[in-house]
Amino acid sequence: MLAAVDPATAVERTRLAFERHARGEWVMPAKVYLEAPPHGDFRAMPARGEGLALVKWVTSFPQNSGRGLPAVRGVVLLSDAGTGEPLAVIECAWVTSLRTGAAAAVSAQALAREGAGSVGIIGCGVNGAWAARCLAAVGYGPGVCADVRQGAAEALASELGWRSGSREEAAAQEVVVTVTPGARPVIGSEDLCRGQHLAVLGADAHDKGEVELGALERCRLFCDEWEQASAGGELSGAVAEGRVRREQVTELGAVLVGAAAGRSSDEEITLFDSTGLAIQDLGIVTAVWEAWKEGRLRAPAAQL
Amino acid sequence: MLAAVDPATAVERTRLAFERHARGEWVMPAKVYLEAPPHGDFRAMPARGEGLALVKWVTSFPQNSGRGLPAVRGVVLLSDAGTGEPLAVIECAWVTSLRTGAAAAVSAQALAREGAGSVGIIGCGVNGAWAARCLAAVGYGPGVCADVRQGAAEALASELGWRSGSREEAAAQEVVVTVTPGARPVIGSEDLCRGQHLAVLGADAHDKGEVELGALERCRLFCDEWEQASAGGELSGAVAEGRVRREQVTELGAVLVGAAAGRSSDEEITLFDSTGLAIQDLGIVTAVWEAWKEGRLRAPAAQL
Repeated sequence: MLAAVDPATAVERTRLAFERHARGEWVMPAKVYLEAPPHGDFRAMPARGEGLALVKWVTSFPQNSGRGLPAVRGVVLLSDAGTGEPLAVIECAWVTSLRTGAAAAVSAQALAREGAGSVGIIGCGVNGAWAARCLAAVGYGPGVCADVRQGAAEALASELGWRSGSREEAAAQEVVVTVTPGARPVIGSEDLCRGQHLAVLGADAHDKGEVELGALERCRLFCDEWEQASAGGELSGAVAEGRVRREQVTELGAVLVGAAAGRSSDEEITLFDSTGLAIQDLGIVTAVWEAWKEGRLRAPAAQL
Repeated sequence: MLAAVDPATAVERTRLAFERHARGEWVMPAKVYLEAPPHGDFRAMPARGEGLALVKWVTSFPQNSGRGLPAVRGVVLLSDAGTGEPLAVIECAWVTSLRTGAAAAVSAQALAREGAGSVGIIGCGVNGAWAARCLAAVGYGPGVCADVRQGAAEALASELGWRSGSREEAAAQEVVVTVTPGARPVIGSEDLCRGQHLAVLGADAHDKGEVELGALERCRLFCDEWEQASAGGELSGAVAEGRVRREQVTELGAVLVGAAAGRSSDEEITLFDSTGLAIQDLGIVTAVWEAWKEGRLRAPAAQL
């Protein structure tokens, strides 16, 4: 199914999703959490746009990898928004990785300094790898891949013709993507470089964070959606402490449609907090559905 | 698939669902609505219990029948709550009808007067028919079937060996079930009979109602869940006007587990407002999943 949506298409559709959502054409209620202790939770994430409606039903079971199971498991259920007819069931782990990686690339296109090229990837797991592929597909790179698992960094570097390196080296690049488990910060104040763009993808719950508060406060802040980001993203800790307020944070979609300002100077450090939106899944799924209808897709979508 | 869950089993599982939920063993966040104008909305309804987790993804497109399409379309996605693994996709219209009808029977078992037997069904569409079948399966009847479409009333009466009759006749029985579109009341004060039990199933949105406010105020009030019922069930209009307060309404599950009192006398008129809960879907689906595992189910569940 990945063949049906290449990284460049994923970036284009993800950008479209943010734009349509910012214009109110695509809609999305808040995601709903179903606790499943001690493993984690299930999330139901609905969105509607382009004549389609979907719900993503997906786990976040952080300890699953210790059991040899995927942490993110689930499906997207796709329906016709006009008739209500269920259309397809689509395995969602790869949709999630692709739209997460694509959001990093869209944020760089919108917010990175003109002429920025070099990339640092901190965390070369599946989402970090897709962020690197999506950035490469839209012209960023070469980059430095860093991971505590040296093999993961080397494999990704080799795939893209980039190089592996230390966390410090990756953090010194012009576009820096962090996709770690978020248990402790991987970017400190001493890492920040003038004019950098940071795409912070790893924090998807309230107690996670990848950037030290002192560093965060030196950045111009952007997010995918304020409600999610302030409640459970990179910004949530700072918001809870009263150190970041609503008016300091701009949504990416607003920048894309020209409703809000983006980067204000070549010196500014921009930080995009990605928590993952159902409209991004919809963006990828519109491409899957087109591929299916055009006969470009064989296996793993089940048509209902 | 209906063969896998007969009406008596549906009543038993629905009762179990209310009990487990009342004890906190089964959990369920509030359902989330995705508006899809002008047709209606999609609803994502998650629930967890018995080692399973599900989301029902279903439309309420009231005008669909005018287009020759079902108003209720969707699927249940079933996952293993322990591993997160998606297990099955189950067509949900029949699950919805069965659990809706079964709730009427559970409410009668819990709240109807000792010795009550005769049934009136007002509205003999698919949900009314399942309510009648579930009531018959647990010993209620014979009954009077009433519908503005005379043929629907006659077909149901003939199936169960009951009779068709007028709305007034149906409303005069000991257990009365209303399952109409809810556009206007079908029970007025003059219809109420001492000691009656009313199961009011038709109102699933804020602007719907099947019982006149004056009649409602003469009843002892029960509901499936206060949050849903007060926001979008039969009670919601009265709640909005301040004529019904939280402390006047008892949840059915609390009665079933002995945490709250049910009917207090043979004279009292009891009214159960059913809005439809995801835990009821889970009750039916536990039986479907057992049947599947035991090889008693062939067709229409798709195993993932």
